[in-house]
Amino acid sequence: MAGLRAFEDMDMIIQSKSHPYSVEIFGDLSSALDAVSHPGRSHWLVDQVLLKHYEAVFHGRLPETRTVLIEATEETKSYDAIGPVFLDLLGKGLKRDGNLIVVGGGVLQDIGCFVATVLARGIRWELVPTTLLAQADSCIGSKSSINIGVFKNQIGTFYSPHRVLLSPSVLESLPWDEIRSGIGEIIKFQLLTGEAEFRELIKDLAQFASHPKVVANWIQRSLEIKKAYIEEDEFDFGRRNQLNYGHSFGHAYESATHYAIPHGIAVVLGMLTATYVSVQMGMVGRGHFDDLRGQLMPWCKPYGDHLATADLEEVLAALRRDKKNTAAGVNCILTRGFGRMEKCRVDMDRVIAPSLRNFITNELH
Amino acid sequence: MAGLRAFEDMDMIIQSKSHPYSVEIFGDLSSALDAVSHPGRSHWLVDQVLLKHYEAVFHGRLPETRTVLIEATEETKSYDAIGPVFLDLLGKGLKRDGNLIVVGGGVLQDIGCFVATVLARGIRWELVPTTLLAQADSCIGSKSSINIGVFKNQIGTFYSPHRVLLSPSVLESLPWDEIRSGIGEIIKFQLLTGEAEFRELIKDLAQFASHPKVVANWIQRSLEIKKAYIEEDEFDFGRRNQLNYGHSFGHAYESATHYAIPHGIAVVLGMLTATYVSVQMGMVGRGHFDDLRGQLMPWCKPYGDHLATADLEEVLAALRRDKKNTAAGVNCILTRGFGRMEKCRVDMDRVIAPSLRNFITNELH
Repeated sequence: MAGLRAFEDMDMIIQSKSHPYSVEIFGDLSSALDAVSHPGRSHWLVDQVLLKHYEAVFHGRLPETRTVLIEATEETKSYDAIGPVFLDLLGKGLKRDGNLIVVGGGVLQDIGCFVATVLARGIRWELVPTTLLAQADSCIGSKSSINIGVFKNQIGTFYSPHRVLLSPSVLESLPWDEIRSGIGEIIKFQLLTGEAEFRELIKDLAQFASHPKVVANWIQRSLEIKKAYIEEDEFDFGRRNQLNYGHSFGHAYESATHYAIPHGIAVVLGMLTATYVSVQMGMVGRGHFDDLRGQLMPWCKPYGDHLATADLEEVLAALRRDKKNTAAGVNCILTRGFGRMEKCRVDMDRVIAPSLRNFITNELH
Repeated sequence: MAGLRAFEDMDMIIQSKSHPYSVEIFGDLSSALDAVSHPGRSHWLVDQVLLKHYEAVFHGRLPETRTVLIEATEETKSYDAIGPVFLDLLGKGLKRDGNLIVVGGGVLQDIGCFVATVLARGIRWELVPTTLLAQADSCIGSKSSINIGVFKNQIGTFYSPHRVLLSPSVLESLPWDEIRSGIGEIIKFQLLTGEAEFRELIKDLAQFASHPKVVANWIQRSLEIKKAYIEEDEFDFGRRNQLNYGHSFGHAYESATHYAIPHGIAVVLGMLTATYVSVQMGMVGRGHFDDLRGQLMPWCKPYGDHLATADLEEVLAALRRDKKNTAAGVNCILTRGFGRMEKCRVDMDRVIAPSLRNFITNELH
């Protein structure tokens, strides 16, 4: 299949405490699926909507007695909903020496990683990410995040796949909102890196929908930035915290709007919020916030308006439930400018609540 | 509290991939409980029968708003039953920076380890093991084993506690069957080591019920043997497999008798079975089996009779479900004599089934 691999030179190896693993890039989805290990003897966990969309590509590739289809929603990536997935896979004969191939976006990855970590205390698994968010960000870093009851992402594990096989061409079939959701994390990586990189990305963004080579380039650049963070701090005790830039607020916005805002767009709104809070804390000038707001708000339409109608109390309640926060305050990543992020603990009543009220009321149009 | 520690010289440090941890030995349960980290700020997971038994010792020690009581049964150490435990602990404010103190036997350890591994992707936890089986064996080695549906122990993790605090004196209050269950694993460690150690242990066994110092000595010797195995092969890919001596058959006996046989006694019966199969395979002489049978059957009463009435087909079905076995055969540890164990794959139809039929019919009286 090597002949079909358009982006071979982009392959990389990620170091991880559990084991090193490869990210391999393919020209199309069928080449990626052809390249998985032992396709006939492995078990498969596949996004059912993706399967329908790519019926011709999957045809003849999934062993019926070893395949489990998943509806990718916030509800299915919950502790209770994953019980039947374990039973299905165990009933289909998956054992300690097996291999699990996971095909889909972030929800499939979360479920697949969690299952692979705790089934028989850890089995081999390979990931074929099929959304921009999964390809440019979550496919490396070894985290799974599972919901339980009202607690979002409070259950999870660190466990790397043994191989990641991705094809940027699969993105051509994605709805624009899905693409924008991935763009959110790509923007974050460049904001963490520096002003020149951010401006270069902003110029390229308009071509994302039509130019897979442009997207592939930014996927690669995002993964290279993330690789440096996670290899230094896989378990998120120090520097990796910075990858949460925008996430404390973004998660709260998702939760308070009952997931009406796609994750990546919530992260963009969260990064703007973190910058706004940084201005209130005297860490960066108002001009930096206005610059980012001007560049980024167009990518948030129409979800900015949606957030403007959110209930502030629900946002604050969601922040209080966040596992990163403690009784003493909100832990979030603030900024002193491009590439200069800092972890801060911010007082909920004196700073967070009034800042969020002003941001939501005045800055979202 | 140092003055209360009768066995201080027995403390040991275990190396583990997640982190090194200590095993600290105390003169009584209250000294162990006094020595846990941040008792008032930690969350507690406690065996409810133990709590009732030691009401006076626990009095004033458990912060009510941070304590979850567990009924220690095979049913509660299941994936579905652990969901409400997560919700209870999260509702009581346990977060990523928390500390979970787990007090009880093997079931509490399994639940506590699983919860500590996957809550917020891993939190700090300390273990106070209160059965002989937990103190002499399972408290080190970092495994958790959780049931799901009909699949016993198929879900689990490797994640060490951050401290183990044990007091052999707590064993004085245990029923004799619980003591015998722990004896099973202690016997296994000495059989893995050599003939002299095994004969020395057999001489001491009669004193286990009345002499805590004798028990403490064999707890220490067992943990020292296990420490060597798990530090060399924590994730059970090689040498640690030998600690499964007796377990493939033992687990099948437990399952086929619906857990009427205590685990440690099932392991003793399993080790006798493995020795019997080894004789059939020409690996060891019949004399070795007769020797062990003569020494060990008295410790199995009356459960040997119980096993004699078990349904062979149910035993074989349980073996087939075992995660260690594959479609090709049963993976088990056989023996060439004291201290000489070997991992073998044995054909189910040609060897295992007829051997088990003969063993169960003829060797259990």
